[in-house]
Amino acid sequence: MKKLLYILLLGTTAVFAQLQKVEPPFWWSGMHNPELQVMFYGNNIAQYTPEVSNGVVITGVTKTENPNYIFVTIDTKNIPAGVLTFSFKNSKSKVAFTQQYELKQRRENSAIRESYDSSDMIYLLMPDRFANGNPDNDSATGVTEKANRADSNGRHGGDIQGIIDHLDYLEELGATAVWSTPLCEDNDKAYSYHGYAQSDVYKIDPRYGSNENYKRLSAEMKKRGMKLVMDYVTNHWGAEHWMYKDLPTYNWIHQFPGYSQSNYRMATQFAPNASQIDKRQCVDGWFVRTMPDLNQSNPLVLKYLTQNAIWWIEYADLGGFRVDTYSYNDKEGIAKWTKAITDEYPYFNIAGEVWMNDQAQIAYWQKDSKIGAIQSYNSHLPTVMDFTGMDAIAAAFNENETGWANGMQRMYDNFANDFLYPDINNILVFAENHDTGRLNEIYKGDFDKYRMAMALVATVRGIPQLYYGSEIGMAGDKGKGDGDIRRDFPGGWKGDSNDAFTKKGRTDEQQQFFDYTSKLFTWRKNKEVIHTGKTTQYLPYDNVYVYFRYNDTDTVMVLINDAAESRTLKTDRFAENIKQHTSGTDVITGKKTDISKEITLEPKSALILELN
Amino acid sequence: MKKLLYILLLGTTAVFAQLQKVEPPFWWSGMHNPELQVMFYGNNIAQYTPEVSNGVVITGVTKTENPNYIFVTIDTKNIPAGVLTFSFKNSKSKVAFTQQYELKQRRENSAIRESYDSSDMIYLLMPDRFANGNPDNDSATGVTEKANRADSNGRHGGDIQGIIDHLDYLEELGATAVWSTPLCEDNDKAYSYHGYAQSDVYKIDPRYGSNENYKRLSAEMKKRGMKLVMDYVTNHWGAEHWMYKDLPTYNWIHQFPGYSQSNYRMATQFAPNASQIDKRQCVDGWFVRTMPDLNQSNPLVLKYLTQNAIWWIEYADLGGFRVDTYSYNDKEGIAKWTKAITDEYPYFNIAGEVWMNDQAQIAYWQKDSKIGAIQSYNSHLPTVMDFTGMDAIAAAFNENETGWANGMQRMYDNFANDFLYPDINNILVFAENHDTGRLNEIYKGDFDKYRMAMALVATVRGIPQLYYGSEIGMAGDKGKGDGDIRRDFPGGWKGDSNDAFTKKGRTDEQQQFFDYTSKLFTWRKNKEVIHTGKTTQYLPYDNVYVYFRYNDTDTVMVLINDAAESRTLKTDRFAENIKQHTSGTDVITGKKTDISKEITLEPKSALILELN
Repeated sequence: MKKLLYILLLGTTAVFAQLQKVEPPFWWSGMHNPELQVMFYGNNIAQYTPEVSNGVVITGVTKTENPNYIFVTIDTKNIPAGVLTFSFKNSKSKVAFTQQYELKQRRENSAIRESYDSSDMIYLLMPDRFANGNPDNDSATGVTEKANRADSNGRHGGDIQGIIDHLDYLEELGATAVWSTPLCEDNDKAYSYHGYAQSDVYKIDPRYGSNENYKRLSAEMKKRGMKLVMDYVTNHWGAEHWMYKDLPTYNWIHQFPGYSQSNYRMATQFAPNASQIDKRQCVDGWFVRTMPDLNQSNPLVLKYLTQNAIWWIEYADLGGFRVDTYSYNDKEGIAKWTKAITDEYPYFNIAGEVWMNDQAQIAYWQKDSKIGAIQSYNSHLPTVMDFTGMDAIAAAFNENETGWANGMQRMYDNFANDFLYPDINNILVFAENHDTGRLNEIYKGDFDKYRMAMALVATVRGIPQLYYGSEIGMAGDKGKGDGDIRRDFPGGWKGDSNDAFTKKGRTDEQQQFFDYTSKLFTWRKNKEVIHTGKTTQYLPYDNVYVYFRYNDTDTVMVLINDAAESRTLKTDRFAENIKQHTSGTDVITGKKTDISKEITLEPKSALILELN
Repeated sequence: MKKLLYILLLGTTAVFAQLQKVEPPFWWSGMHNPELQVMFYGNNIAQYTPEVSNGVVITGVTKTENPNYIFVTIDTKNIPAGVLTFSFKNSKSKVAFTQQYELKQRRENSAIRESYDSSDMIYLLMPDRFANGNPDNDSATGVTEKANRADSNGRHGGDIQGIIDHLDYLEELGATAVWSTPLCEDNDKAYSYHGYAQSDVYKIDPRYGSNENYKRLSAEMKKRGMKLVMDYVTNHWGAEHWMYKDLPTYNWIHQFPGYSQSNYRMATQFAPNASQIDKRQCVDGWFVRTMPDLNQSNPLVLKYLTQNAIWWIEYADLGGFRVDTYSYNDKEGIAKWTKAITDEYPYFNIAGEVWMNDQAQIAYWQKDSKIGAIQSYNSHLPTVMDFTGMDAIAAAFNENETGWANGMQRMYDNFANDFLYPDINNILVFAENHDTGRLNEIYKGDFDKYRMAMALVATVRGIPQLYYGSEIGMAGDKGKGDGDIRRDFPGGWKGDSNDAFTKKGRTDEQQQFFDYTSKLFTWRKNKEVIHTGKTTQYLPYDNVYVYFRYNDTDTVMVLINDAAESRTLKTDRFAENIKQHTSGTDVITGKKTDISKEITLEPKSALILELN
């Protein structure tokens, strides 16, 4: 921020007071897309005509119905890093004021940066609820809502420093990536802790820290070989966003006029027979009144969101995105946004929240989907989320019997439809997230059920995601409100009587959960056979589900006994995968098991065997 | 049969006793595919070398490990109708015996015959349970099981004559096509009435009548502009089939060896990760022990089944097929079978039983499916069955409220996925069939619910199918066994105290059901806007579901109030479909309704309005 202020001060010698915002605040030289659109905001700024130094060509100037904005597009191709000067001339062609603008040097190999993939385990956390590393910023100035830990829907004080402080913990757990819910400023009067009603998308919320802090988190993670995944919100901003208070164009947001709620019925977006009124209400309607719905079909908006996203990747050296309410965006707009980012960073991963209960509909949204192609649609989105898998996990382990469609058959059926996905490794696999009931609530803290669910999440195809706290048995009831599924991580606050971040501080039960989770995901870290191996699954009988992950060199056999009784399986049924192997090593206990004839499974247990 | 016997007698002058079967028993000149494979069956017949007269070329002779079979392939191209003579020579090149074989003249325009489509209403009946037109054949000789109407799983005596006798009734009802469950000989000792365990696929079961009777049924229907749809079974025969008792080849059927039951888990057929053992068990396993599973990957079997199917189309002048357990056949084999038939008859419709609970999986099986194409599969099957729609109908009308996924929302969601189907008009729409719970049982005889369900079935896209007896309120509990959902149609047997075939004989309740159904489907008969019009559906609110069918000239508005209270809807929400219209005519009552501002719907009611 200091640097930004410096530039602002430096550049506005003439009529500084008039210029309130320049966005993006700076950019980089040598981007794949050399076109840069700089937005200047200030009282009546549209009366001026912009020029720029250093031989840079202005390819477009857009003024809107709001005279306080001017959008200047320049071509940065072959322009070396350095400071440009924008001059703004008045009607008499006299320079009224100037503004310096920096094109920075990019990090080496920034464009071909690596991103998260199926070799990772993503730890999803809510920063306000994870750990309070800096109590001084809990009620920072310049933002409205103050800390009140007694309010389950209030701000609790967690912050970026809290995440940095516990990277060792996350590493020990086996996490290799962190998806934090949004960290940009959300200046809502209430519920601001969730961060999805952003009021400034170029600025980290001061209650979490600063832009510099965020950059440091990323750097600290990189040292550990971990990736920082930003939760990006294209669909809406908060009603406190400064631009909402002085819209560049009437159609910057979706207006009915003003607020109208989404019907949330995603089916309208596929239905060839949906009415226009329902289709529009779904994606143009607002999520809630406090979140104006952005119009990504407006090229200015789309450009703004695209550049903002790229700015964060480049600025904070990000390792990936998760995109909120992906399918609620303007369909064509979000595809362009996604393509622009992946054109810029070909290996950058983006997981979109495509929350549907039908696999064809989820698969629709994945890049190069054959199902999307039915409607000539290609989202360009690399990763989709296995919400049907989540539903299956949440139901399967409370069902002792396998019928046509319950118990372990749910899992089989979910993976049977994998043929619908164009990229089976780029599927986010999870048992829960910050918007659902907590796994340990659904399964009433039953460790056996947790273990089966986690064994699945860790060993099936795709990218596993763990929701903070589940690894120590944290529960939370969605029925009691979002606050309950977003409780504080014990030990994250000075004075917490229970510190689950350390072995010493954990209860026996917490240690049991942590130990299993840590062993599982630590083992997974280097198992290419799990990351990218093929899968063979066997129809569940008697509620026992068996599948294999394999490649040319390794075979892992996973057996899940969801029945309340122990089960003995003859192994000849699995000959096509077991082949010459006669024994396997339990990846949790290290114990070797003979598999030449049969395997006995404990009730409600998961056994992961590396075949020898 | 007389003609067949005559030919057999005529042709076997030399060693008649040796030749027991010739199949197909005759064929036609001028078929699209000129290749014909004639199977000769007789003790040690493979010792002979066949020749044929009239300049016909033998293109192939196949002998198998069973010396009692010989398959002779001839090229009938440009061979006029007439009688050919096959000569069988012994090892000394001496003609041991001859066999005459007729190539008949085809009916005019046989190849371009019309078939059922979305302008039809298909009446599904079980012939043993519909009407007993000829009591003399109830316990015909030559077959084992005798009539016993007291046994719900026994034979009750219904027959082809019974169907012929009630064509006027069906016409009055609004049916334009009849799908009868199989009529070929099923000589099982028990449960033979269902007909799916066929023992001779070239012969109508004598308890139903004769081949000639079947042909007459077709002709009688044609006079009325109705279509006869044959229920064809490619997947299996009955254990009493004569060929099963002396298999041409070991792999004519799927052997494990011998019997092994299917796992019935259709998901194995899509799963890219399914084990081979499960995949095989699904389609190669037998449905039940009494039904040997045919191996359609054996070219001899495939040819036999293809020619048999074509033989019936040509012989009985059929108007379409329904294919039993379509998805349980060898996948490539059944696609070839389907293609061969539709190559022969380009407008012939075939509906496959693809009983899955996932629309992507159902759509997979339709001709030119983009989803099938993901696995490079094209079944060539014109019509698939809307089983998810059936499930939705069976649940929706017992739910008074619309949540995210219940009540009328079920219907919306079902039709939202219509984009997955390559041919939206070729979808069989039904509320029940002979394998499911009966609609009037599920809805406890509630006429209001029946009416809503039927209004839906009659007015949504696709080909409506009605299950016999529902139109007079017949119930039947699947939980009590198949016999209960396949009760005798009242009035179909001499002496029945209740004759629901006639207005006079119906109870008031039966008349209420019949009257509504008849009015509905009679109205539908000439409504092109329903047959092929586009659909716009609106998200259900308060459990009221509204949709429109429209084309360039007509608009039909359907309103279904699934709530237990009356509802008043403002019509401005539907402006994009209502357009300039200000009133509509109720197609059941003929009453005109003002729709310029609002419409009030009775509780649990359906209103179908033709807009004026």
